[in-house]
Amino acid sequence: MVRVGILGATGAVGEALIRILLGHPEARLTFLASDHASGTRVDEALPVLRGQTDAVLRKPDLAGFAAEADVVFLAKKGADSMDWAPRLLAGGLRAIDCGAEFRFRDPAVYERFYGTKHTCPDTLAEAVYGLPELYRDRIRAARIVGVPGCYPTTAILPLAPLLAEGLVSPAAIAVDAYSGLSGAGKTYNEKTRNLFVDCDENCRAYSPLVHRHAPEIEQELSLAAGTPASVLFVPHLLPLDRGILTTIFADAGKRPASTADVLALWRRRYAAEPFIRIFDKLDEVTLANVHRTNYADFSALVDPRSNKVVIVAALDNIVRGACGMAVQSMNLMFGLPETTGLLFRCV
Amino acid sequence: MVRVGILGATGAVGEALIRILLGHPEARLTFLASDHASGTRVDEALPVLRGQTDAVLRKPDLAGFAAEADVVFLAKKGADSMDWAPRLLAGGLRAIDCGAEFRFRDPAVYERFYGTKHTCPDTLAEAVYGLPELYRDRIRAARIVGVPGCYPTTAILPLAPLLAEGLVSPAAIAVDAYSGLSGAGKTYNEKTRNLFVDCDENCRAYSPLVHRHAPEIEQELSLAAGTPASVLFVPHLLPLDRGILTTIFADAGKRPASTADVLALWRRRYAAEPFIRIFDKLDEVTLANVHRTNYADFSALVDPRSNKVVIVAALDNIVRGACGMAVQSMNLMFGLPETTGLLFRCV
Amino acid sequence: MVRVGILGATGAVGEALIRILLGHPEARLTFLASDHASGTRVDEALPVLRGQTDAVLRKPDLAGFAAEADVVFLAKKGADSMDWAPRLLAGGLRAIDCGAEFRFRDPAVYERFYGTKHTCPDTLAEAVYGLPELYRDRIRAARIVGVPGCYPTTAILPLAPLLAEGLVSPAAIAVDAYSGLSGAGKTYNEKTRNLFVDCDENCRAYSPLVHRHAPEIEQELSLAAGTPASVLFVPHLLPLDRGILTTIFADAGKRPASTADVLALWRRRYAAEPFIRIFDKLDEVTLANVHRTNYADFSALVDPRSNKVVIVAALDNIVRGACGMAVQSMNLMFGLPETTGLLFRCV
Amino acid sequence: MVRVGILGATGAVGEALIRILLGHPEARLTFLASDHASGTRVDEALPVLRGQTDAVLRKPDLAGFAAEADVVFLAKKGADSMDWAPRLLAGGLRAIDCGAEFRFRDPAVYERFYGTKHTCPDTLAEAVYGLPELYRDRIRAARIVGVPGCYPTTAILPLAPLLAEGLVSPAAIAVDAYSGLSGAGKTYNEKTRNLFVDCDENCRAYSPLVHRHAPEIEQELSLAAGTPASVLFVPHLLPLDRGILTTIFADAGKRPASTADVLALWRRRYAAEPFIRIFDKLDEVTLANVHRTNYADFSALVDPRSNKVVIVAALDNIVRGACGMAVQSMNLMFGLPETTGLLFRCV
Repeated sequence: MVRVGILGATGAVGEALIRILLGHPEARLTFLASDHASGTRVDEALPVLRGQTDAVLRKPDLAGFAAEADVVFLAKKGADSMDWAPRLLAGGLRAIDCGAEFRFRDPAVYERFYGTKHTCPDTLAEAVYGLPELYRDRIRAARIVGVPGCYPTTAILPLAPLLAEGLVSPAAIAVDAYSGLSGAGKTYNEKTRNLFVDCDENCRAYSPLVHRHAPEIEQELSLAAGTPASVLFVPHLLPLDRGILTTIFADAGKRPASTADVLALWRRRYAAEPFIRIFDKLDEVTLANVHRTNYADFSALVDPRSNKVVIVAALDNIVRGACGMAVQSMNLMFGLPETTGLLFRCV
Repeated sequence: MVRVGILGATGAVGEALIRILLGHPEARLTFLASDHASGTRVDEALPVLRGQTDAVLRKPDLAGFAAEADVVFLAKKGADSMDWAPRLLAGGLRAIDCGAEFRFRDPAVYERFYGTKHTCPDTLAEAVYGLPELYRDRIRAARIVGVPGCYPTTAILPLAPLLAEGLVSPAAIAVDAYSGLSGAGKTYNEKTRNLFVDCDENCRAYSPLVHRHAPEIEQELSLAAGTPASVLFVPHLLPLDRGILTTIFADAGKRPASTADVLALWRRRYAAEPFIRIFDKLDEVTLANVHRTNYADFSALVDPRSNKVVIVAALDNIVRGACGMAVQSMNLMFGLPETTGLLFRCV
Repeated sequence: MVRVGILGATGAVGEALIRILLGHPEARLTFLASDHASGTRVDEALPVLRGQTDAVLRKPDLAGFAAEADVVFLAKKGADSMDWAPRLLAGGLRAIDCGAEFRFRDPAVYERFYGTKHTCPDTLAEAVYGLPELYRDRIRAARIVGVPGCYPTTAILPLAPLLAEGLVSPAAIAVDAYSGLSGAGKTYNEKTRNLFVDCDENCRAYSPLVHRHAPEIEQELSLAAGTPASVLFVPHLLPLDRGILTTIFADAGKRPASTADVLALWRRRYAAEPFIRIFDKLDEVTLANVHRTNYADFSALVDPRSNKVVIVAALDNIVRGACGMAVQSMNLMFGLPETTGLLFRCV
Repeated sequence: MVRVGILGATGAVGEALIRILLGHPEARLTFLASDHASGTRVDEALPVLRGQTDAVLRKPDLAGFAAEADVVFLAKKGADSMDWAPRLLAGGLRAIDCGAEFRFRDPAVYERFYGTKHTCPDTLAEAVYGLPELYRDRIRAARIVGVPGCYPTTAILPLAPLLAEGLVSPAAIAVDAYSGLSGAGKTYNEKTRNLFVDCDENCRAYSPLVHRHAPEIEQELSLAAGTPASVLFVPHLLPLDRGILTTIFADAGKRPASTADVLALWRRRYAAEPFIRIFDKLDEVTLANVHRTNYADFSALVDPRSNKVVIVAALDNIVRGACGMAVQSMNLMFGLPETTGLLFRCV
């Protein structure tokens, strides 16, 4: 039984982690920490949990974590995570960060795009990028995992194997992505203008070409390609709660391939993956199929006239794009079957 | 391990049953029957299941059910259920009907409202109304259970105890109900006009005062009150997928009561119920809280000026209003803990 | 040509007024005032207006209004309206207030429900309740009109004639109302929690029995009935932008009536009304039919068992529930055909 | 006063035409034809029109059209339009076809993509492609206009001037488009699966690279470029009613340009256009801004690293993508100011 602490238990990420872990047969939530709501029951802060737990929120506390938890999920923003992560490791705990602080190989990239100094570069240096399909063995051994961003996951999973084998070119890959509003969090947010009346019956791009997930995508695609890769990343907002659908246009690589070749490569590469589903046709990939699951679904179509590869990928941004993937890493870190607690939802 | 067959596996009800039961630790889906899709894999008919099962749909077959299943869920419409139910019982199986065929005490009421002859009144006579909070012991022993309608469940659970103890009057209870579109099924339906463009950004009543769930509500409220009860039932369509929110206006009964009295009665009556949640205030009852769960949430407010009791109740029409409740009955029938497989969803 | 000023031009009400009046052939927007955005073009503050006007927002200014406008719409909150209204009248202008400050006959009711002192009771005393179907002649002559609330309009229009002629009882009328989110305005609002993720796929009641529109409904229903009327008003939020659908349950009055009687009375009473549409059946009343129009649609069904009258009414909360109705009053005040600028939308 | 007939008055296109033309001060609807509903009032077939017209639907009839109309809108599918168009012209009428039958220069392209023989190639030969910004003078003189497709309009308006002046390359332009469901019509449609439960909270591609609008886009882009242009067109469905948002990725052309250059070219080319709005930034282009209007909004961003041009374009598929644009052509054909009846909606 893995004993789990959560820092930032009442935010969107914290809430989703609690809900997944309450149903996880090999995990026990032992320490739910919240700076501003400590002392109250978690099901008072999050009434959706009524009937499922009588846990009380507590002030975060290193000694408490060390005594009661094996791993702590960091579900907070920025500075706090960089403050806590090294202390948790020093206290003998393992950590899984759901923010952006432990995703980048180069702290300078983090600092440029997030506009803040990285205060624990040594911890960053040992952090493992928490994409199990690419880094499974390193995650198993990691003391700290940086959970990938939601948009990057939709782009990296289909593209990495194609870049590695030269089926697509690493230059100027167009990543046209559409996300539901749960990605914007549970409070008002100037950048996404996430009021109902601004989003309902609406669709628009935001942060085109300059979104913080662009350098993260480029980091991983470059590693996969073995040469610098570049993307044109244009995120948009969809009038729905959950899910990201990403359509990708890439030039053929050194080894131009047919649709069948692309599908075959993926099926070979991901044959043993429990959470990857390859579909024959682009239009079979839907947000409905991945809704509230840990699957990443994708398909490809090669245009015979232009040799361009078109990909459509879908996932649930809160489960596969954040908290489900985080729990998948936890399962690996503690030697549990990787799918534990993640295979089903209650319809 | 309960061995489960499903008749009508690819409809809206069948799909939800499969998804719940795949995650149920004490059930095994052994026989998925479909008249029109037999021979194909269920995850081809329902791609959302890809990766979770390799079961193949089969033609329904009594000997097959008898050999391989302990219980069969009837997830079909009308005549088929009345045809299969007696044969399944005769074959030594137990049956849980998710349609309307085994809900009424009086076949004449069924015949009047459903416009078709009841062809197995004897089976109907032994059927138990599958509302565990009211008929738990009878369900345990039942050979056949008729799962309640979704709307009736939202009205009966809060009203039955209040009627039983005289806190509300059984006369002319206004039941103003709002349902998401999943209740209208997976094909086009003239009555609900369930095209996206007819429902999006729209709301309207349908079948006011004459909906088939009205006599079902009245049957159970009358039994609870010990005297004939009548309702004005006005269902409406909400532009969303899942959930029913019902607002009820009832006159005070012989024993007029305050808001606190009503809440206290419910808390006493439902103290041990795992799937009932009582909230202090009407505005705390939301569809979001019950989304894809087996909970029924409700609250009350007594108007001090008029002595009217106002109730708001919410549930997920597919889980608590149909398939989750059906599995809850299955758990009871086979001596399993009642909440098995029903407590969580994957966020 | 009526010269029009607007105070609070960039809020939800101001924006809708501008859009209606830009298309109004007998009105000219001469003074668009905004406290915080003066000096900028209105189509910069409201990009939806690009291409339709090059007007510049200005600081509100009494002399400016007096010189350039015949009427000023007050599209601001609370205190500001009470400050400006008497000054505008003193300056020889006429005023149409879209807030709650000039709706109540009794300032004490306003003060109790809005929690603030009414600072210009004399102006309130001369204000006319801007419901043309009830007060057409008085509106024509009014110096100041208080535009009704959106919810009250849905309840008063169908109920007033029935109360006046004794077809329904004035006691304990249940008004169960469902509104889209545009009613919650264009900024975050604690009471309605109007973030997309809190409203999408959700429905819930708010302010049950204590919403500020309840006393406004009771004021007008009491006047219509000639005796005190009382309502149980329960507003809810619908996951859509525009529209209110209200279902009403009332007891029969001294003169019990059939469905046909109710429809006939309405058709007689409202025969000449350009913006009232009576439908034969409850389920023909839909939000889609009134979307972005100035119509109020309703129908009735009398329950033969209980003699209760069930009514469903629909309107667009921003047009018929606020700005369209305000322009309808302006048309009356300035001797224009009442429907000018209000009959059509561009699909 | 232009006398207008409509063939197919009760479909989605017919309904929108009626609503626009009822508010058009220089048009009179004289002949509303419907094959299956003749003899009934149009506001019975389309209750949203209640109170706006008492017109009765009639059987289509050439003599009737000739006697009573100056122009007939063809709002029907396929074969019917090809049957009626030549007869209307022969009868001295002008025609505006809202389908695909009169959009293609080459009947063979039509036949290949629509799978049916073109039965009036002579009429097609004289038809003008009804995009006023490109063919204004020819539309003025046309006897028959083929209204462009909704998706093509979003791609052609921004791309045509850039191709004409060499700012983008005509090769392999990625057109990633997202449409609301009103584009799928008012009946169930296998290709778009337009039931509420299949579209709500969902997003998916359909007909990728093979949609019938692809050759239409290529026809017009090739003409603009003066050389064959090719597109990768991937349409998707958005969970909303109205609007298309299209994101385009194109390579730089012979004359690579900055963002400012692209915006400047558009502003010069479209300076006098009443229905084109150029925005400085991609994220200012929203479906909300064009909702139920005749505007086409767009913006561009040139990626300095890759020299790719990224464009976001938005329009209302029913107004600017079909019926509004059709009325714009009618205005031109009859010498009316081009914006007549099209500038405003009632908020």
